[in-house]
Amino acid sequence: MVAPASRLAAEAAERVPALAGSLYPERPPEIVFHPQCFASHGHFAGDDETRAHAFLDIANDESFDAVWFARGGYGSCRMAEAVMCRLTQPARRKVYLGYSDAGVLLAALYRAGFEAVAHGPMAQDILRDGGSAAVERALAWMVDRSPEGLEPTVSRVAKTAAFNMTVLSQILGTPLQPVLDAHVLMLEEVGEAMYRIDRLLFHITSNAEIRRVAGMMLGRCSRITPNEPDFGMNEEEIARCWCRRSGIPWLGRADIGHDADNKIVPFGLPLLRTV
Amino acid sequence: MVAPASRLAAEAAERVPALAGSLYPERPPEIVFHPQCFASHGHFAGDDETRAHAFLDIANDESFDAVWFARGGYGSCRMAEAVMCRLTQPARRKVYLGYSDAGVLLAALYRAGFEAVAHGPMAQDILRDGGSAAVERALAWMVDRSPEGLEPTVSRVAKTAAFNMTVLSQILGTPLQPVLDAHVLMLEEVGEAMYRIDRLLFHITSNAEIRRVAGMMLGRCSRITPNEPDFGMNEEEIARCWCRRSGIPWLGRADIGHDADNKIVPFGLPLLRTV
Repeated sequence: MVAPASRLAAEAAERVPALAGSLYPERPPEIVFHPQCFASHGHFAGDDETRAHAFLDIANDESFDAVWFARGGYGSCRMAEAVMCRLTQPARRKVYLGYSDAGVLLAALYRAGFEAVAHGPMAQDILRDGGSAAVERALAWMVDRSPEGLEPTVSRVAKTAAFNMTVLSQILGTPLQPVLDAHVLMLEEVGEAMYRIDRLLFHITSNAEIRRVAGMMLGRCSRITPNEPDFGMNEEEIARCWCRRSGIPWLGRADIGHDADNKIVPFGLPLLRTV
Repeated sequence: MVAPASRLAAEAAERVPALAGSLYPERPPEIVFHPQCFASHGHFAGDDETRAHAFLDIANDESFDAVWFARGGYGSCRMAEAVMCRLTQPARRKVYLGYSDAGVLLAALYRAGFEAVAHGPMAQDILRDGGSAAVERALAWMVDRSPEGLEPTVSRVAKTAAFNMTVLSQILGTPLQPVLDAHVLMLEEVGEAMYRIDRLLFHITSNAEIRRVAGMMLGRCSRITPNEPDFGMNEEEIARCWCRRSGIPWLGRADIGHDADNKIVPFGLPLLRTV
């Protein structure tokens, strides 16, 4: 576990291994918290160099199977470029799991051809109401590639990707922009006013490369802040409007969001366990 | 005057012509408020079609010399694409003045080769403390092309452009993105947390086309909302950091912002009055 953005709460670091031990009594997964998860530098879990080094320590180490992002917050974009050119072969064989701000790294890794990148719960989610279920879902994906925690529309035939709207917006037009041609793109948001959700969807759906997606699905938009005056449309009406204007097929709602019910969305086609 | 985003306050519509009359007693400029300025549709001064029509009414009319944006808020991106393909020859001979959300239209017009597009005060600014000075500055630019209200570093030799950070960020990678090669780019912000200013400047300075600017200047960042925890850098340290990382020359502070002191920044080279 590494924290490329904000630092992990100590309570989460206690509860996650305990839960893992109870879920897998015969073969408890070894969860290693890089000390950087608890570092502090202003807004961040350590300065940019510290976070970059920690990510590389775990990603490039043969002995780990997964890089699990501790939490979001803000900061991945400050270290993404520095890490991408220093990843080695062992990094390519790993699972990467996270969402929200970690979407910056998921995008960069997926763009670089990494095959087991997924949107899904992080350790800090255990502090949410019902958060144990979220962490259980993340562990089941990392340990067993269990399909039970997948977003229900994820299939073996259509490529998928999932992002927080703001995070995707803020990498459009940069070297980190993912190539999402023919993907079902799922988007969620938290803590933004309705006019900002509208502006974000204008931005995303007006991008020529994004317009090549197979379609868009809307996850949950939670803790929407007050709009003064009332915006006049809700988030689904907004999403449908921008799909219509951009020619991107509207594919309905997705079971993702900043909450305990947040499901797993592999980038590309899901690498499921072979039964 | 038209309002491509939010609607104009009635008080501003009364005070602006009165001020103009007192400033130019011999030859008072005729200020025509399109009725759309006072229309209301949810967040906006009329629905998207109403705002687009109003803009075209004024821009394409031979008898007007300028299109002055009434105020910002949010909404220009919802009507910009619809108006750009319907502008006629009279529209090219006009001055366009505004900032904040109107930056979306300034960008689109400038990209389309319009030569008298400028960042500067709007009618609604008269409601600010000291706002009469802002409106006086705007009128002096529109009526006389007076150089007194220009941002002090604007010259006849270096091309300039000015934007609100969020507004520029949200058109990057879209067909409205302005071509700013070899321009001095001035950026200001209002009402955002420090981590968002950092993320916006990551986004803007990571864009390959934006990296071709001659340099960046930082305007005022006002009403910065609390950052939890403290971000650890102020807005100038952040701007210097992203300039260093991106190779964009840091050119210091600019005299622009969401306030009564906001100066005029012509897009490209200033078309000054010939003495």
